[in-house]
Amino acid sequence: MKLEGKVVVAQGGGPTAVINQSLVGVVLESRKFQQVTRVYGAEHGVDGILNENFFDLSQETTNNLEKVAQTPSSALLSTRVKPDIKYCQEMFKVLKAHDVRYFFYIGGNDSSDTVRIVNNEAEKASYEFRAIHIPKTIDNDLVLNDHTPGYGSAARFVATAFAGANLDNRALPGVYIGVVMGRHAGFLTAASALAKKYPDDGPHLIYLPERKFMISKFLEDVKNTYAKYGRCVIAVSEGISDENGIPIITKLSKHEERDAHGNVQLSGTGALGDLLADEIRNKLKIKRVRSDTFGYLQRSFLDCVSDVDQQEAREVGEKAAHFAIWHNLDGSISIKRTGSYSVNYSLEKLEDVAGKTRVMPDTFITPEGNNVTQDFLFYCRPLVGSGFKQAHRLRVPRADKIL
Amino acid sequence: MKLEGKVVVAQGGGPTAVINQSLVGVVLESRKFQQVTRVYGAEHGVDGILNENFFDLSQETTNNLEKVAQTPSSALLSTRVKPDIKYCQEMFKVLKAHDVRYFFYIGGNDSSDTVRIVNNEAEKASYEFRAIHIPKTIDNDLVLNDHTPGYGSAARFVATAFAGANLDNRALPGVYIGVVMGRHAGFLTAASALAKKYPDDGPHLIYLPERKFMISKFLEDVKNTYAKYGRCVIAVSEGISDENGIPIITKLSKHEERDAHGNVQLSGTGALGDLLADEIRNKLKIKRVRSDTFGYLQRSFLDCVSDVDQQEAREVGEKAAHFAIWHNLDGSISIKRTGSYSVNYSLEKLEDVAGKTRVMPDTFITPEGNNVTQDFLFYCRPLVGSGFKQAHRLRVPRADKIL
Repeated sequence: MKLEGKVVVAQGGGPTAVINQSLVGVVLESRKFQQVTRVYGAEHGVDGILNENFFDLSQETTNNLEKVAQTPSSALLSTRVKPDIKYCQEMFKVLKAHDVRYFFYIGGNDSSDTVRIVNNEAEKASYEFRAIHIPKTIDNDLVLNDHTPGYGSAARFVATAFAGANLDNRALPGVYIGVVMGRHAGFLTAASALAKKYPDDGPHLIYLPERKFMISKFLEDVKNTYAKYGRCVIAVSEGISDENGIPIITKLSKHEERDAHGNVQLSGTGALGDLLADEIRNKLKIKRVRSDTFGYLQRSFLDCVSDVDQQEAREVGEKAAHFAIWHNLDGSISIKRTGSYSVNYSLEKLEDVAGKTRVMPDTFITPEGNNVTQDFLFYCRPLVGSGFKQAHRLRVPRADKIL
Repeated sequence: MKLEGKVVVAQGGGPTAVINQSLVGVVLESRKFQQVTRVYGAEHGVDGILNENFFDLSQETTNNLEKVAQTPSSALLSTRVKPDIKYCQEMFKVLKAHDVRYFFYIGGNDSSDTVRIVNNEAEKASYEFRAIHIPKTIDNDLVLNDHTPGYGSAARFVATAFAGANLDNRALPGVYIGVVMGRHAGFLTAASALAKKYPDDGPHLIYLPERKFMISKFLEDVKNTYAKYGRCVIAVSEGISDENGIPIITKLSKHEERDAHGNVQLSGTGALGDLLADEIRNKLKIKRVRSDTFGYLQRSFLDCVSDVDQQEAREVGEKAAHFAIWHNLDGSISIKRTGSYSVNYSLEKLEDVAGKTRVMPDTFITPEGNNVTQDFLFYCRPLVGSGFKQAHRLRVPRADKIL
């Protein structure tokens, strides 16, 4: 008994470099099924569903879909709206009115929760409906996943940026701070460690939200590193917090903006890096101190994308169509690591993924809490894909002095 | 009559993504000449000469030199020292003691001046000596050059970053400010315009140091753009100054650091972007305002390099060796555009390049002073090289509303 009706696909939350791969995976695969009467894309995520702003993706060419797949950031546009039950009920009304039978929402753990609520509404109404959450987040913080689509490319950007910053810092020594996205999970900041090739390469210090950040310990670490190498490259997560769980950035920012979830806005400002740089200048009397905040480049840069990430993002979209249309199942697609390096996909219960946050396991963080372990490097390396750029050094002897 | 002796090559100032191409061009070409007894590299620029810190590059393999050529940032390490006459006299003593007959200094217009002074010392001492300045700067501000090695790759990074930031801003609308390097010359900030593909793409506004920056006009521009597109992407040069020539950043930064030239430190802080974002929030009451400062990523990123820039950087190094060793000439290598697109190299007098700064011609800037012209796009496009990434959009019709 085939369930005939429309497909709706939407994208939510912060864009990634490969989120359109998942979109195109859903669209191309869904269009192969006879029972699918149309494939719609909702504009600006759930907002597009509520307001009936749908694009008819049945009319897009395969050629252009493949080009869109290669383009970072949500092609259907995104939203920061976090629907409550009433919002989801209204969404369900629209979906039912349009005879939508398959709903795919590409997003993080909040999006997963939205899918769960809309699906409950369908069940309550005894409306035959398949709803699948497709994972996406550069934060890599979805539970039950080895990693999430979007992370590998962002990790590649961060590692590549630090490899360059390390070379720059070596040429003109001083202290360099790179501030990386990540509120609760330090996976993306940790990826900076892939930049290290030679033993004295930076980043020399890595600070993650999983460990309390104490400014005195931080200054001591920087002082010791600077004494040892004559320079210091530091990776800092924007989400680092003090012993009371208060984000370091809120201690100094005049402007405090909160999102729909009540979270303080961390990105889109250089304040945290500037604060830490000032502390180092003032307390350690080091003159050349620079900080960069990688900001939105981390999730949208067009020219530093992981092929592994692209392929997996495509596959989670395709698998979502399989689970929903072939197998008549609801759930959240999850990536499992099955070898070194290979993955497979499973379907998890929506309630097991929705609204939960995964952080870095203790085995990925050194006991001192200011760096990552070999375990993490082994975990992360395959995700950034092939062709990851390497730095090379001269290795010639010094000439004898005469004077 | 062949001039027998050693070669010394050094790198000065801010690193670029292709500065090692020029280094390797000098080394590989110099090593072919019988009259060259050794090829030395000075560590940390002029500082390495003063202190006799030389690497014997005669002992490096061609394979590793080619790998180093692909690596951004100065492989010989760099310096911010600006030598005065006394410093140059000491340098000359060292060069003479080591029987150095050929001196190649890869750097900006300050480095050019250093080469000029050292060369004068040699002439005064009647010491046979060839000195060549090899151009390098992401700022693209050397006179008598169509453009400079390092600019094309930095321009590619900036344009690619804005293409991604524009997609991100389109998906989650608001105001986005990207702050780009450049104290007096706006060439690098202007390169952001290459990010535009569709008519409504950003950057919508571009502010350059060549035009006075007035905050009231800026706010008006942003307001109009936001009203038109529901969003606004802005490229700002870190060097923008008010009607009195005072950098906007100094109006707000607590910390003021000056370099050896008395210039206020502009990079390595997010302060300018944060100030402008605050102004927009407070005066225009726009909620979602984000700023990123691209910082050191612009000149050191490993994975976004222009092949045209790489080739030209190699060639200026090779030509320097030709001019000095084949032709017994001193001077500054210069890039001339000879076609669309082709270049050739000439040797200019050191005093004609030294210490001078080129800025954007008026024909590259729109009359309103908040954007660039087609002339500039025609000028800049070939420099970012082949394989420049393009964004693609969906182009399907909307579905009819039912409710």
